[in-house]
Amino acid sequence: MAQSSVDNGVNVGALLAAREALKGAPQAAKFKWRASCKWKNGTHSETKLQGFHGLGEEQKHKTEFCFDADHPEIFASEDLGATPIEFVLVGLASCLTAGVAAVAQNRGIQLRSVEAKLEGSMDIQGILGIDSDVRNGYDDIKVTFHIDADASKKDIEAIVAQSQKRSAVYDAITNPTNVTVVVA
Amino acid sequence: MAQSSVDNGVNVGALLAAREALKGAPQAAKFKWRASCKWKNGTHSETKLQGFHGLGEEQKHKTEFCFDADHPEIFASEDLGATPIEFVLVGLASCLTAGVAAVAQNRGIQLRSVEAKLEGSMDIQGILGIDSDVRNGYDDIKVTFHIDADASKKDIEAIVAQSQKRSAVYDAITNPTNVTVVVA
Repeated sequence: MAQSSVDNGVNVGALLAAREALKGAPQAAKFKWRASCKWKNGTHSETKLQGFHGLGEEQKHKTEFCFDADHPEIFASEDLGATPIEFVLVGLASCLTAGVAAVAQNRGIQLRSVEAKLEGSMDIQGILGIDSDVRNGYDDIKVTFHIDADASKKDIEAIVAQSQKRSAVYDAITNPTNVTVVVA
Repeated sequence: MAQSSVDNGVNVGALLAAREALKGAPQAAKFKWRASCKWKNGTHSETKLQGFHGLGEEQKHKTEFCFDADHPEIFASEDLGATPIEFVLVGLASCLTAGVAAVAQNRGIQLRSVEAKLEGSMDIQGILGIDSDVRNGYDDIKVTFHIDADASKKDIEAIVAQSQKRSAVYDAITNPTNVTVVVA
C-alpha cells in the first residue's frame, strides 16, 4: 500500500515539521487554553471559548464556541444544556478520535469509519454528600472504539494505544492535575 | 434576610429530599453518563449526548446535545470545533458555577451575577512527543470567580469552597480516574 494514497485529512507533515521547530523553541510549546463562564439561572450557565495562547503569541479560534450547561430534570433542573460531567466525556472522545486519525495517517493506514462509545460510572452519593467515602467524579470510564480501516485488528489496536499515549484529555483524566480556585 | 425571598433558581428542597430518599436506596444513586463520538475527517469529530442511566432506570435529556471538536489552524487543522482539551474547562467552569448557585441558595444568599474565567496551562512538547518528561494534559488550571451577591467576601469564598468540595468535574480533574479503552 502506497502511503501517499492514504488520506485521513490529517496534515502529518505539518505536525512533524512543528515538532522539529519546537525542539529548538521550547517556550513556544507553552500553551494556555481559556474559558469564560457566565451563570444564567439555577444550574444553567453558558461557557465561551475563543482566545488562547500558544507559539509565543495570542491566538484565536475562527469563531467563538458557546456551550450551555445545566443539570437534568431528574435533578430538579431545566436540562437546558449538557451536564457538566458529560463535557469530560466529550473531551475524551474527541481527543482519542483525533489521535486515531493522526496516528493512522502517520502509519499510512486509511480509515473508513471511527466511532467511540463512552460510558462513565458515577455514584451521586458523593456529590449529594450522603457518603464521604464515595468520590464526586467518575469511578470508572470505559471507551469502546469501532473502527473500519485498511488494517488488521492488531494494527488498529496499536493505533488506539498510541492515541491514548499522546492524548491530552486521557492524561488529564487518568492523572491528577492541580486546580486553583480563587474569588477575585 | 428572609431565606424564603432568595431565589437563585435552584430547587434546593427537591435536592435535599432526593438526598434523603437515596440514603435508603443507594443503588439508585449509581449513574452512567454516556457519549457517542463519530469521526468526520482529519481531527474533526462530532460527539452526541442524550441517554444516561440513573435512579434505577434509563433516562434521557429533553434534547440531544451535539458537539463538534477539532484542532485549531495552528495545528494544521480546520478549527471546526472546540479543541478537545478545552471541553475539560467547559465542564469544570459549569460544574463549579452550578455548585455556587446551589450552595448560595441553600445558605439563603441571593446571587446577582457569577462569572468564572479559566486558564489551563499545557506544554505541547508532551503531545508532540518531544520530551517524555512533559505530561500531555494540563500542568495547572486556574479558576477565578467574580461574584456579585448579597454576602460578604468571606461568605462568598465559603460558597465557592463548598462548591469545589462537591464538584464532580473538580474531582475528576484533580484526582486520577481509571479509563479503559478497547477496540470492539
